[in-house]
Amino acid sequence: MTIDLSYSPEVTDLVARTRTFIDDVVLPLENQYAGDIVAAGGDDLRRELNAQAKAAGIFAPHAPVEFGGLGLNMSDRSPVFTAAGRSTFGPVALHLGAPDEGNVHMLAEVASPTQKDRYLAPLAKGEIRSAFAMTEPSPGAGADPNALRTHAVRVPGGWKINGMKRFITGADGAGMWIIMARTKGEPGDRGGATMFLAPAGTPGIEVGRYVHTYDRGMIGGHCEVTFTDVFVPDEDVLGEPDEGYRYAQVRLGPARMTHVMRWMGVAERAHDIALDYVGTREGFGGKLGDLGMIQQMVADNEIDLAATRALLTNACWELDQGEHASNSTSIAKTYGAEAFSRILDRCVQMCGGLGVSEDLPLARLANEVRPFRIYDGPSEVHRWALAKRAVGRARKAREAGVRNV
Amino acid sequence: MTIDLSYSPEVTDLVARTRTFIDDVVLPLENQYAGDIVAAGGDDLRRELNAQAKAAGIFAPHAPVEFGGLGLNMSDRSPVFTAAGRSTFGPVALHLGAPDEGNVHMLAEVASPTQKDRYLAPLAKGEIRSAFAMTEPSPGAGADPNALRTHAVRVPGGWKINGMKRFITGADGAGMWIIMARTKGEPGDRGGATMFLAPAGTPGIEVGRYVHTYDRGMIGGHCEVTFTDVFVPDEDVLGEPDEGYRYAQVRLGPARMTHVMRWMGVAERAHDIALDYVGTREGFGGKLGDLGMIQQMVADNEIDLAATRALLTNACWELDQGEHASNSTSIAKTYGAEAFSRILDRCVQMCGGLGVSEDLPLARLANEVRPFRIYDGPSEVHRWALAKRAVGRARKAREAGVRNV
Amino acid sequence: MTIDLSYSPEVTDLVARTRTFIDDVVLPLENQYAGDIVAAGGDDLRRELNAQAKAAGIFAPHAPVEFGGLGLNMSDRSPVFTAAGRSTFGPVALHLGAPDEGNVHMLAEVASPTQKDRYLAPLAKGEIRSAFAMTEPSPGAGADPNALRTHAVRVPGGWKINGMKRFITGADGAGMWIIMARTKGEPGDRGGATMFLAPAGTPGIEVGRYVHTYDRGMIGGHCEVTFTDVFVPDEDVLGEPDEGYRYAQVRLGPARMTHVMRWMGVAERAHDIALDYVGTREGFGGKLGDLGMIQQMVADNEIDLAATRALLTNACWELDQGEHASNSTSIAKTYGAEAFSRILDRCVQMCGGLGVSEDLPLARLANEVRPFRIYDGPSEVHRWALAKRAVGRARKAREAGVRNV
Amino acid sequence: MTIDLSYSPEVTDLVARTRTFIDDVVLPLENQYAGDIVAAGGDDLRRELNAQAKAAGIFAPHAPVEFGGLGLNMSDRSPVFTAAGRSTFGPVALHLGAPDEGNVHMLAEVASPTQKDRYLAPLAKGEIRSAFAMTEPSPGAGADPNALRTHAVRVPGGWKINGMKRFITGADGAGMWIIMARTKGEPGDRGGATMFLAPAGTPGIEVGRYVHTYDRGMIGGHCEVTFTDVFVPDEDVLGEPDEGYRYAQVRLGPARMTHVMRWMGVAERAHDIALDYVGTREGFGGKLGDLGMIQQMVADNEIDLAATRALLTNACWELDQGEHASNSTSIAKTYGAEAFSRILDRCVQMCGGLGVSEDLPLARLANEVRPFRIYDGPSEVHRWALAKRAVGRARKAREAGVRNV
Repeated sequence: MTIDLSYSPEVTDLVARTRTFIDDVVLPLENQYAGDIVAAGGDDLRRELNAQAKAAGIFAPHAPVEFGGLGLNMSDRSPVFTAAGRSTFGPVALHLGAPDEGNVHMLAEVASPTQKDRYLAPLAKGEIRSAFAMTEPSPGAGADPNALRTHAVRVPGGWKINGMKRFITGADGAGMWIIMARTKGEPGDRGGATMFLAPAGTPGIEVGRYVHTYDRGMIGGHCEVTFTDVFVPDEDVLGEPDEGYRYAQVRLGPARMTHVMRWMGVAERAHDIALDYVGTREGFGGKLGDLGMIQQMVADNEIDLAATRALLTNACWELDQGEHASNSTSIAKTYGAEAFSRILDRCVQMCGGLGVSEDLPLARLANEVRPFRIYDGPSEVHRWALAKRAVGRARKAREAGVRNV
Repeated sequence: MTIDLSYSPEVTDLVARTRTFIDDVVLPLENQYAGDIVAAGGDDLRRELNAQAKAAGIFAPHAPVEFGGLGLNMSDRSPVFTAAGRSTFGPVALHLGAPDEGNVHMLAEVASPTQKDRYLAPLAKGEIRSAFAMTEPSPGAGADPNALRTHAVRVPGGWKINGMKRFITGADGAGMWIIMARTKGEPGDRGGATMFLAPAGTPGIEVGRYVHTYDRGMIGGHCEVTFTDVFVPDEDVLGEPDEGYRYAQVRLGPARMTHVMRWMGVAERAHDIALDYVGTREGFGGKLGDLGMIQQMVADNEIDLAATRALLTNACWELDQGEHASNSTSIAKTYGAEAFSRILDRCVQMCGGLGVSEDLPLARLANEVRPFRIYDGPSEVHRWALAKRAVGRARKAREAGVRNV
Repeated sequence: MTIDLSYSPEVTDLVARTRTFIDDVVLPLENQYAGDIVAAGGDDLRRELNAQAKAAGIFAPHAPVEFGGLGLNMSDRSPVFTAAGRSTFGPVALHLGAPDEGNVHMLAEVASPTQKDRYLAPLAKGEIRSAFAMTEPSPGAGADPNALRTHAVRVPGGWKINGMKRFITGADGAGMWIIMARTKGEPGDRGGATMFLAPAGTPGIEVGRYVHTYDRGMIGGHCEVTFTDVFVPDEDVLGEPDEGYRYAQVRLGPARMTHVMRWMGVAERAHDIALDYVGTREGFGGKLGDLGMIQQMVADNEIDLAATRALLTNACWELDQGEHASNSTSIAKTYGAEAFSRILDRCVQMCGGLGVSEDLPLARLANEVRPFRIYDGPSEVHRWALAKRAVGRARKAREAGVRNV
Repeated sequence: MTIDLSYSPEVTDLVARTRTFIDDVVLPLENQYAGDIVAAGGDDLRRELNAQAKAAGIFAPHAPVEFGGLGLNMSDRSPVFTAAGRSTFGPVALHLGAPDEGNVHMLAEVASPTQKDRYLAPLAKGEIRSAFAMTEPSPGAGADPNALRTHAVRVPGGWKINGMKRFITGADGAGMWIIMARTKGEPGDRGGATMFLAPAGTPGIEVGRYVHTYDRGMIGGHCEVTFTDVFVPDEDVLGEPDEGYRYAQVRLGPARMTHVMRWMGVAERAHDIALDYVGTREGFGGKLGDLGMIQQMVADNEIDLAATRALLTNACWELDQGEHASNSTSIAKTYGAEAFSRILDRCVQMCGGLGVSEDLPLARLANEVRPFRIYDGPSEVHRWALAKRAVGRARKAREAGVRNV
């Protein structure tokens, strides 16, 4: 018994088929619709691509088998999601994008049988899209989730929710909602949140403006949403009241990692574009790719990609063992998000004038990955958490008499 | 069948016993002899520590079982060597330091049965130390091995070697030599080298001055050695003539990785010392470890350590599959060597005045890891090789019609 | 006699008036038109702003006094251009943007009296805009100017130009052209270029598509332009034939520095926006600006801004002494361009979700400064030139017997 | 009236004579004594070199003219001190090293006429060396000066001082002491310190062990010193009681800058050594200096040196205007200290195996500059101060209604 880093033939084959689908079907569409204001080509295109992905046997590889998915664990999702992420339309096409994929993951873990029938089944099959309503404008829940201000109060037969959310991905056109609201304590307190499920059309949910951001690849935008006296019956409380932060953790670690997987696809593609450029473009008496400073950028990309992959593999394995994996997912997320920015920046630089133009997709893809250093916890918050744990670990070692000097 | 990143209980236990031995037996001696001109306390201390390590059942974990070792593969060596590397005397104490460990590895792969009896057996058991005589002063073989100038000519019954070597680790007191000499072609040509074995006391081998370097942890120094009409009989040619570079490759990948393992131990120890300091030192109205800029350094160390470990695990696994692993070992070596310098630098900075003083071992350990960015191939050479391969890979993909845009 | 780093009261006053004009008049317009496809609000807005700037006595501070400018030297331009560059519309409003400002500079140095009347006078006064047609698509003149392929051949009474250009800033709507064409040698040869002047409407000049780039602030776009049998009479040859590269040098050093000045304004503004945000936004039990990791970003911005300013001051002073200042302008350009990207990136990160959204202008401004690491010579080309000169300088010192060890 | 960055012919000549003295007289001695435990060759060598420097007319260029110095202001000191700092023995040889130079500077500003006769005169002339006793072991005054614990109590005719100091540079062999002790408030309080003067041999001053550090260039070591009932008469109180922190500020800004000047000399020399190496060493089919990755290191050194120089020039000019220059000296110190570490690291890397050995002085010089990122305020403390001021400045601008968006 020892380390094994190989994938099964089934997974290897699935990766190859996913890559073929992206290259042949999705990339041409991405190039056609990239400039559109409606992200990822809109819902009509999404449904068409979903149907083709189902036909190709590659749809929703993470979803439970009983709901039509392939039931992959985190380790096996990694290379498949990366292949899908190569195109910014890929996650939508295979229905493995944020926030749907994370919501499917959490509902499969936490929802009641009735809730699974009503919400998980149509979501997993791609009949609807979903939104996860957690982050709020200042001074509410942002990088610091304990600042949660949207609140729910007990009413006969259920709860009534009021509050405002911002940066709610996929809100425009969402077929179902998962709403995080405070049911105990005050903003700033730890704990005391509950998750509520609600179908599209629930009275009191109003989707406001898009908050336009660097990235444009997620369908349904990042929107402002207001909740005014939204009634949710008891049977649509997800899990137990006041346990919302715990379920958010169930969602959080894996969702961070699938973000890394998808944007890894973007980074790999950009690197391939740059390699192709420097391997063919003449200048300074030879190919650009023979110049030392270009080689340094190429090699640094190779190192950054390999390190991200290795950290991702490690975190996924820990998650598959049933661990919280707080440290390893924070590390893989922080390293990956920063690496992707560096990689895209080097690719742009290697391609010179073309790199900063729309003649290549690099400038657009650089804008697509930049926000990941903020989404899912800014790098600074992850570093703070990592440091707290490390200093705590050292204190325990000191108290146990461990020797360093 | 899927990813598995766990170690067997036997390896986990061996790691724990190694760590206990280092903490209880080796670290106190390191602190006592650290300033000595004779590295790692000299050969008398080495023999004493070797005996204790044998008694503890942790001696030479990499050596073949038939020669008294534990026969670990690369994956399993990793955590054990890291535990041993925690003290700069640890590798000598467990007889797993450079160049002996790499020489044992190569001899086990390449040597004839007779050569194994004569050279590998006493070396594996720690009865003697060894030297690997490859690098030369300018304009000879340095970062560019093809520049090899030391040459061997055919004489009756064997070969006669002439040339000069520099930076020959462990030369002073070596009980056996592996000598790399050109047997075909001219300096600058690819290929054409042969490896020769020679016992201590072979006429014509003269060990010159120590080339004093930043690092002081390797026993027997980094020396200048001259070879004047050194006769080596045919039975002491290692493997086939002219195949020296190929055998060097056998040695190179694993030797790079065991360097990473050992210096990883130094980096982990330094990080623990700094964590202990910032967790207890008061300043600016609290503990230093509660300050954001300190937390950033702590977190960056955590990330660098995790990334090095993950890349190392990956490269070791590839080597255990029988692959050359040129890319993955270059990446793990380059990333690790640079990470260790960054980590030690942050540890020094976190500890302020104490960090730059001899009151803590950090300044000394920082000097110990610095040269690794040059030893075993400077970072620049690894990056050059990585870039060449990446550009070549892209060319093949282009020729195969793969689509990126 | 010693170092003096003070500005005259006249310059200090001009800086203050420029800043007031930008804040009161220009910034509100920028926010209104920022998303428009027509950069900087288009030519109608430009003429209106130019008139207001003239009325405020701050128009074209670099232009010769005899043509209605303020005649500032490079040192004095620095703080004025920075104040104007605070808004991406500022350079257009004060008529000190690229390429007009550099063209005015070069024409004032090189043009004949007749050419000054015909071209410089209306350009300096803002009656027309101009284009500098130098860079070409691959394999023509890009980062390597010697690759110039557009060529001009002798015809009776003048020259006939053929070729294709790309990334020609301000081409759409340009009232005059400066065209760089090869009159001697082959693509790849050093030297042999000539500069030609041509009015708008010259037959054979065709402005093609915009090459859309990260940056959108320059009026008239970065366009493709084809020159087909364009006739230029002898009196419109700028300076001497075959001396084009020499005149490009006259333009190049100062034009690099005014780019630094203008984008410095963007960087200062972004830093001020971020400071305002972290000084007021609550989170993690206080103001964000009290957190160590935020303070590190703030301080690094302060350092980067100060270093860019100091290097710029130095380079401008050398240019004002009549020196080529190749080293100091390369250093200020390279450092500045990289610093601006770092600064904008930190500002975005400090502002979190707002930073990556259009609710603040930071994401847009980050895209505005990114291309400067490629425009006016990629960082890699400047580093190559710096290294060549440094190694050459060391060789001379060695030959002169200077001692280092 | 505008920017002027030129030096007077007198200063230019002084720089040239200083450089000649360093190259011809001091460097050979440095190489001879570099490994010695007694820093900078000891006091006998110091006196001999001081005499030669006086004969050459280059001794103590910063000291007041009436005490035998050249009376240079900060701006003019800059290139002279840099030339002297080229050798680690240079500052001792010209009597412009820490802490003497800073002490001369402060005594010239603050001391009474009697104190000047008794202490400043012999110190300025190099008859004695001095120590500035401020920093203490934890939990006393370190990076946070308000933690000062050494205290002085009123006794008839003077004060009695008790406490312990650490890292007191030049203590071993000091001919006079400036002692910082608390005369009001408690450790942690702002203010309340007094500076006391005391001659060598004052009862109760005991110099303890050397705290050995990375750097070895300062004569008299960094020592532990205990003060036990040390009596200082009223006439040896420097300036006013309780105003010690204010005088420390007088000393602090300039002392930071002269540290930058001196270590700039080390960095320039290391860069020259590396340039010489890469310009002559063959490898990979040419000179190392023709390889892109080497050129990048060379260029980055050029940029770092130029930026440090420019920031230093700026800070010195502000100091010469009588300003506190807190921001500009913090920036120049922080940037310079970090740049010197980067530069030395690149020089080591460029020189490969020789770089990490004692065959070149680079490894030794790298160790010499490393502590500067901690001495005179760690980079983190300077960044904290810079950020506090920047955020405060933004608050004032906000309150004044300044517009950024």
